[in-house]
This record gives sequence, C-alpha cells and structure tokens, in this order.
Amino acid sequence: MPEPIGRTDVEAQVVIAVDVGGTGIKCALVTPDHQVVHSERHTTGAERGADAVVETILSVVEGLAAKAVADDLVPVAVGICIPGVVDEAEGVIRYAANTGGMRNVPLRDLATARVGLPVRVGHDVRTGGLAEATLGAGAGYDQVLFIPIGTGIAAAHIVGGKVLAGGHWGAGEIGHIIVRPGGPVCGCGQRGCLEAIASASAVGRRYSERVGVTASAREVASQAAAGDPVAAEVWAETVDALADALLTAQALYDPSQVIIGGGLAEAGEQLLTPLRQALRDRIAFFTEPEIVRARLGDEAGCLGAALLALTVAEFDHPTDPAVLTPLEAEL
Amino acid sequence: MPEPIGRTDVEAQVVIAVDVGGTGIKCALVTPDHQVVHSERHTTGAERGADAVVETILSVVEGLAAKAVADDLVPVAVGICIPGVVDEAEGVIRYAANTGGMRNVPLRDLATARVGLPVRVGHDVRTGGLAEATLGAGAGYDQVLFIPIGTGIAAAHIVGGKVLAGGHWGAGEIGHIIVRPGGPVCGCGQRGCLEAIASASAVGRRYSERVGVTASAREVASQAAAGDPVAAEVWAETVDALADALLTAQALYDPSQVIIGGGLAEAGEQLLTPLRQALRDRIAFFTEPEIVRARLGDEAGCLGAALLALTVAEFDHPTDPAVLTPLEAEL
Repeated sequence: MPEPIGRTDVEAQVVIAVDVGGTGIKCALVTPDHQVVHSERHTTGAERGADAVVETILSVVEGLAAKAVADDLVPVAVGICIPGVVDEAEGVIRYAANTGGMRNVPLRDLATARVGLPVRVGHDVRTGGLAEATLGAGAGYDQVLFIPIGTGIAAAHIVGGKVLAGGHWGAGEIGHIIVRPGGPVCGCGQRGCLEAIASASAVGRRYSERVGVTASAREVASQAAAGDPVAAEVWAETVDALADALLTAQALYDPSQVIIGGGLAEAGEQLLTPLRQALRDRIAFFTEPEIVRARLGDEAGCLGAALLALTVAEFDHPTDPAVLTPLEAEL
Repeated sequence: MPEPIGRTDVEAQVVIAVDVGGTGIKCALVTPDHQVVHSERHTTGAERGADAVVETILSVVEGLAAKAVADDLVPVAVGICIPGVVDEAEGVIRYAANTGGMRNVPLRDLATARVGLPVRVGHDVRTGGLAEATLGAGAGYDQVLFIPIGTGIAAAHIVGGKVLAGGHWGAGEIGHIIVRPGGPVCGCGQRGCLEAIASASAVGRRYSERVGVTASAREVASQAAAGDPVAAEVWAETVDALADALLTAQALYDPSQVIIGGGLAEAGEQLLTPLRQALRDRIAFFTEPEIVRARLGDEAGCLGAALLALTVAEFDHPTDPAVLTPLEAEL
C-alpha cells in the first residue's frame, strides 16, 4: 500500500496519553503538534483494588500502542497522569487513594516493560495545569495558577512553562489551606479548609444541610441564579472562601493569571464575576491576577499526559524544536 | 611593582555588591568565588528623600569602583538589592517606601551610566534568600523557603537555585497572609496578617501593650526564658502564628527546607524548637520541611547582591563555570 499523500514518517509518530481518574480513564493517541487522532474512555474500577487498576492501566496502554500500529502510526512514548502523590522523578505512584489505594507502584517502569517505550508519569492536576497553561487559557502567560474545583480543590503553579511540584511532590494544595479556622471538618482531618467549603461537593452539601434536600453544586448555582436566598447565601460564602484563598495565593505565588477549572467553573461568569470583585475588595497591596475559565475542560489531563510523553519521546526524525521547547524542562 | 605571587588577572576581578536598607547601606567588593575582600557601611538617610538616596547609592558604587582600582582590583559588575517592588527584568525600582519613597527609579541604568559596568538590581529578601539558599544554610537543598523575620516578614522561594519573583515581582509576601481573621491591624491595611503578630516589632508591641512598658522582641524572648508568664504567652502566640503561616506555605510551596532569618532568629532554638513542634502538630498530610536558622546573618543581602552581579559580569578571562552555574538562570 502506498504512503498516503503528504504523510511523512514524522507525521506518523504519536504519543500515548492516559489520564487516570477515580472513576474513568481517558486516553488518546496524540501527534507531536498536539492533535488527538484517536481517543478512548475506560472504567477505572477502583473498587477492585490497586493491582487490578494497575493492570487495567497497562492493558489500556498496550491496547493504544496496538491501535496506533494498526492505524499505520508509530507510537514513540507514553504519558500517564494520576491523582495522588506522584514521584515524577522516579516515575512511582507513592500513594493514590482514589485509584484502588496504590502505594509505591513503579508505574513508569511497569509501563515501559509492557510496551517498550519511554514513559513519564505525572500528578493529575499538575499535568492538566501544564496543558491549560501552555495549550489552553494560559497560552502566552508566563506565571499561571490553574485551580480545578471539583470533588476536591488543588492547584498547579506554572512558571515559564514548568510546573512547580515542590520538594516532596506536594506543592499546590490550595484546597487544604485553612480559610475558616474552626470551620467544617475536611476529609484531610483539618477544619476550615477551602475544600471543605468551596469544592463542588461541599457547595452541594452545605446547601443540602440548610434545606434538607440533596443538591449538586450545579443545582445550587441554578437556584441562586433563580433567586433562592439560601442558594444565594451558599454561593456567596463559596465565592468569599475562594477569594480568601486566592488572596493567600496572590501573596505567596503572585501569578499573572488564575485559571479556574473543574465542575464549579461550569457556572462561568456566575462564579468568576463575583470572585474577581471579592478578590479586588481584598487585594491590599498585591497586584490582581486575571481570573479566567479553563478552556480544555476534561481534556486537560489527557493533553497534559501527551505533553509529558513528548518530553521523553525519541523521534525517528527531528521534529520542530519549537513544539517541544516549553516542555523540555524537568517538572 | 611585580604582581603578587599566585595572583592572576582572574583573581584580581571583583564585583561591587550593595545592600540598601532603610537605615544603612552595606556594601562590599567580592571575588568570583564569593570572598569579601573589602566592606563598608554607609547611612541611607532616607529622610532626605528618594533623589538624595539614589545619589548616595550611586556615589557608594562609584567609591567602591575607585577603591577596587586603588587596590589593584578590576571591578567587573555591580549588584544592588533594595526593599520594595523591584522590576528585576528592567532594573527599575517601582516603589520603595523605606528608602525615601522611590518611584520608578531606573537604578540599573543610572548605575551603569555612573560607572560603566553591567548592573543588576534585586529585591532585598529575594537577593538575601538567593545567598542563603546557595551559599548559606540552604546549600545542597533544591527547594528552599527563606523567611527573614525582623521589622517585617517576607519570604524568598528558591527552586533549583532560582528565586521565584512572581508575575508582578510580588511573590513571597508571607508576612501578609491572614493568620488571625479580624486580628490586629497591619501596616498594609489588612487585619490579622502574620506580620502584625509575629514580626520582631509586633512581638515587642504585643508584650508592651500587656505590661505597659516598652520592650523589644529580644527582651520578650529573654523574659519568656526567665519564666515571665506574660512574655511566655506572647512568645507562644508568636510561635503559633508562625506555625499557621508555615502550614500554608507547606501546602502551597512544599519546600524541603525552611530557613528562618532576621532579628527574631537570634532567639535560636527558643524559637525553632517549639516552631518545629507546632508545625508537626498541624502538618495534616503534608511533609514536614527541615526548619533551620539562617547562617549568613545580615551579610546575606550583600552576598546576594554579589551573586546578582556575578550573573551579569563580563570576565576578561573565563572563570570556573561551576562557580556561576547556579546563578546564570534569570531570576
């Protein structure tokens, strides 16, 4: 069979990108210029335990490699992101509660052994933040703070295209700074964490406690917009808690841009407009960041995993170095 | 006159280092391997206003260049650090309240015009932090948070030998994160800032308010050690506030090492031992950093200014690149 017109070996190369979550695994084949040429979703099955989830991840990677070959593509590297404490230097999942209770899983080496390709693993929020900062809402910004607000809240701090991971792979835990001393108990054991007040699940829970019926954060937002005073109160408290946390983040990180993602960001300007004002009201002598909504939605993790893979890919032919430059630096 | 035995042209080269403070200017001639070969102190005279202070700084630089030449040394670059908002890319002092009220002073270009050498300017705490992290207590650590506690409190976050300055040259304002909502009014206008409770001046003030006599932080520490219950209470509150702030810093930055400097650090283990315990009591799921005392004392700013100068120095002869590598990166 002749080569398709215009196809070169370089164009035929792809990376395997895998975003492992607590309930689902999003994965894709992605070209060096960030085009998704194939995507799949799988169930994590965390209830089966860590060993089974690891085997599922490895099977997914193997399946994607086979799919690439079947499509006349050349898989050159693998990127995998996962929630938990991820030792990105060693490629080891130190602890991941939501994916079956993994402890010290050498995922990088296991995946390399399975498919014979270079592999890089990353923390889910930092990996998604890398994608948002370089390919999404943060493109063109040098100092970005990406904050997905969903079941939990965390942040990725990206400076000059590099994600800062901290000395123990623990940076960016903005969900667990205490904004209401003595406030609601958080899953982490502290009281008054941002996450215990302003995560999507906490917003739903706080409203439910006051009206006696179960509600999601999305429903609270709708009710608040429709004039429900209790929902409006819960929403205002959420904005206040987020503004307090952003003020602390501004004092310590001083980002130029804050990108809000995750489920709560689906409220769009209903969240961002009062949040900008609440931060402005508190800003003291700090400089306000631009506060914008994430652009990549739930694709951020998978695209970020592709970016991780591209940093370790060995290409048969040199690609445009401009494509890789922002990613070459170690996380 | 013959060259001294063993002296080479490379050895004869020095940088001019200037640490401008609110009351005094510390300055030195420093070799490429960080040896201070001459030092001076001058009075800032901030009460004379910004123009006069700038002229003093330029005269000090000019005098040090002349002193170098008189001593058969070759001045090759200048580093100047100063408290305030310093645009380190443009070499402009955007605002500096404590040195005569400077606004938009192009100090780098003014100094270059005066002495014809490359000049680099930096923020005082970030510059001191660079020195502590690379030549002082942080040598060998990759992720360091330097926190001098004196009249004010600020931090320098150093990762891989680079100081993170933020998107608006405002990172590291740990003194102005709110640790006691509704607490004492801070000079910045907020209430309950760390600085309003745990700075050396706040420690003295809080004790004085309770006993009706003026006292310094050093005296409060002595009284607490001697069993004075009011002093002990003030000291314990100080430690608690610092631990709360360190917890937030650990959540966001996740440093491996925290270096405490400034006047309050003179209390040594009387401060650090309970501070380590108070942070351990709060640590949640974060990893504890090592908490140590600064080593360079009030020389940190001047040595840091020398490090800044070394990054822009043009040497007649190549020096050992190992000396410069950690400093070459842009701040």
